[in-house]
Amino acid sequence: MDMHELTRSLQVKNSAKIVMLVGDGLGGLPMTPGGKTELETANTPNLDRLATAGVQGGSIPVKPGIAPGSGPGHLGLFGYDPLKYQIGRGALEATGIGFELQNGDVAIRCNFCTLDADGLISDRRAGRIPTEQSAPIAISLRQIQIPGVEVFVEPVKEHRFVVVFRGEGLHGEVEDTDPQATGVAPLDPVARDEASQRTAEVAKEFLRQAREILKDQPHANFHTMRGFASKPDLPSYEEVYGLRAAAIAVYPMYKGLARLVGMDIIGEAQTLDDQMEVLKQNWEDYDFFFIHYKYTDSTGEDGNFEAKVKRTEDLDAILPKIEALNPEVLIVTGDHSTPAYLQSHSWHPVPTLLVSDCCRPDPHTSFSESNSLTGGLSQFEAKYLMLLALSNAGKMGKYGA
Amino acid sequence: MDMHELTRSLQVKNSAKIVMLVGDGLGGLPMTPGGKTELETANTPNLDRLATAGVQGGSIPVKPGIAPGSGPGHLGLFGYDPLKYQIGRGALEATGIGFELQNGDVAIRCNFCTLDADGLISDRRAGRIPTEQSAPIAISLRQIQIPGVEVFVEPVKEHRFVVVFRGEGLHGEVEDTDPQATGVAPLDPVARDEASQRTAEVAKEFLRQAREILKDQPHANFHTMRGFASKPDLPSYEEVYGLRAAAIAVYPMYKGLARLVGMDIIGEAQTLDDQMEVLKQNWEDYDFFFIHYKYTDSTGEDGNFEAKVKRTEDLDAILPKIEALNPEVLIVTGDHSTPAYLQSHSWHPVPTLLVSDCCRPDPHTSFSESNSLTGGLSQFEAKYLMLLALSNAGKMGKYGA
Repeated sequence: MDMHELTRSLQVKNSAKIVMLVGDGLGGLPMTPGGKTELETANTPNLDRLATAGVQGGSIPVKPGIAPGSGPGHLGLFGYDPLKYQIGRGALEATGIGFELQNGDVAIRCNFCTLDADGLISDRRAGRIPTEQSAPIAISLRQIQIPGVEVFVEPVKEHRFVVVFRGEGLHGEVEDTDPQATGVAPLDPVARDEASQRTAEVAKEFLRQAREILKDQPHANFHTMRGFASKPDLPSYEEVYGLRAAAIAVYPMYKGLARLVGMDIIGEAQTLDDQMEVLKQNWEDYDFFFIHYKYTDSTGEDGNFEAKVKRTEDLDAILPKIEALNPEVLIVTGDHSTPAYLQSHSWHPVPTLLVSDCCRPDPHTSFSESNSLTGGLSQFEAKYLMLLALSNAGKMGKYGA
Repeated sequence: MDMHELTRSLQVKNSAKIVMLVGDGLGGLPMTPGGKTELETANTPNLDRLATAGVQGGSIPVKPGIAPGSGPGHLGLFGYDPLKYQIGRGALEATGIGFELQNGDVAIRCNFCTLDADGLISDRRAGRIPTEQSAPIAISLRQIQIPGVEVFVEPVKEHRFVVVFRGEGLHGEVEDTDPQATGVAPLDPVARDEASQRTAEVAKEFLRQAREILKDQPHANFHTMRGFASKPDLPSYEEVYGLRAAAIAVYPMYKGLARLVGMDIIGEAQTLDDQMEVLKQNWEDYDFFFIHYKYTDSTGEDGNFEAKVKRTEDLDAILPKIEALNPEVLIVTGDHSTPAYLQSHSWHPVPTLLVSDCCRPDPHTSFSESNSLTGGLSQFEAKYLMLLALSNAGKMGKYGA
């Protein structure tokens, strides 16, 4: 049974507030055998105080051993089984640049490439053309017109851009045109199913016009199309949980992910302090707040242990501002760990803290990677975190009589 | 794969005895921040001694964050996935008053209501008519005769009673007739599928006759029908586990739930001491004993922390009587926690203790909510407890060669 069948039928409305503070990439590894992790090194008096009052556990983003990207990592936290609900590459790329996908849209990741005189690919990334040059070229493709289809072209970075088709009868099951090799011609877009036939035709026409427009470019004289994807069909927070939910994020990717589950994107925050101000200003208007903090991830990706420790301390420092609003349920977690040691997303259970008046506190008095593994929440799949949030907030009735 | 596919194929017969002592609602929460829970407050020398010899863990009744009713709570303990096997409302109500449902029966919860002169509902509960008045009125409905169908009418309490139809071709997929509002007429019973068409017709005829019988009642001059439900189709303990199983319970609900999985209901115990006597008398005749103790739940529901502590101590005190019989496996658990703080069933993992000669003891020396979360059984879904019981009793062979 899908957990949302349960949450739909067990919804209880009340005035309780839930705050989920996501430190992207939270938690890590020792840099040397026997050393301390990022959380163990960081001075986090507020998290430790909350760990004493609350309960901690290790959130397994997908399944044991699976390191997720941002998409599945957040879907899990939002309570959407990341193995059931998948966000196609194109849709994630469009989401990541803040493009507001609508139902029925098909989004595609495109790479500028270089064709030789014979029309064979000589460079799959057009010499990694810099963004200053590639953006205007991408924008020049906006002149492409295809009957019955609205076409959007959005620059991303260097050789990358995004195309979105909007119109009737479009589906995302189309093969990549990138042959993943040089010295061969780009492939034609081929539909994998009948319903995506029209998308393949539209893509083919787009490529025909693009070839004409780009033909005189020295490097970016053509492009490939990859990761065709329809907008994922995710039920909304309002529908599955009965929650008025808001997202307070700085980066477009996380605003986009929140938008996919029907959260309102509020404020124009650029810093944690801004985010706290947005939270306070909107406190009365929502039941659930998702607050996203990026820098525990980006410093981990950089392999910069000290910077990640500092960013973790910055996250700790703003907690009193959230507590001052007296949320009934306060959760601190991450969509995955990004250990500086690995310089990448990891599969380790993510230290997760939950505080409420009925959370059944565990004996731990500090918040850390190792304590979380033996905390009162034990290790659990991230997709269950929302159930715990709802029940601790009194927003879910009992199952069965 | 359903776990019962495994248990069927791996059954091993031996003379080992398993006792599962269920303290309904066992475990709780501190009443004040930093305070002690019910189990931590109670003086439980026997449970603590068994915790030292055995292994403990936290049983998640359904899934993290889901608080179950008694039905799903017990199905989980009995090893039946409570999300797969559901007991319809009517069937649970009939079970709860001790009615022995047979395969094919359809049970319905009924509420007496008051109709005004225009036939519109003016009171959905007939003025909460007291049981002394409502019971004889319910019994008067036993005169209703419907060709080809055996009709049972059982009073419950105040405005509530149960109707059971027994006959060929009856199924429970019928909509409620309660419009959930006053000032409107009761609805006709409508089948949700073809197989339940006859049930809807039978219910319509029942209502026609009931209207005539009740027409002169000042308050209870009609009734609604809700929660139509077939007897759930649960495979028996004998079939899935190869166990001769007995239930020793005081309350009809728990006898009924045990009967649904094919346990024999033994004795007429009214107290824990009675239950111990029934256990001793029947020791040789069964492999598995389910002993149900209600008062750790009811005191929790009342919000009476001290009473729940006392009832927990009473439960502790009878353990030597069970131990004297030398069961190979002794389990103490609950179908859910009922923290006095919440005055309701909760989602928290239920402290669960298992003692056998091969249980691999953990280092804990007392039985408590927090120890259970870090015990040797870790946290596990209740539906797996029977597998642990069987293997600790040597009653389950290995899977695969």
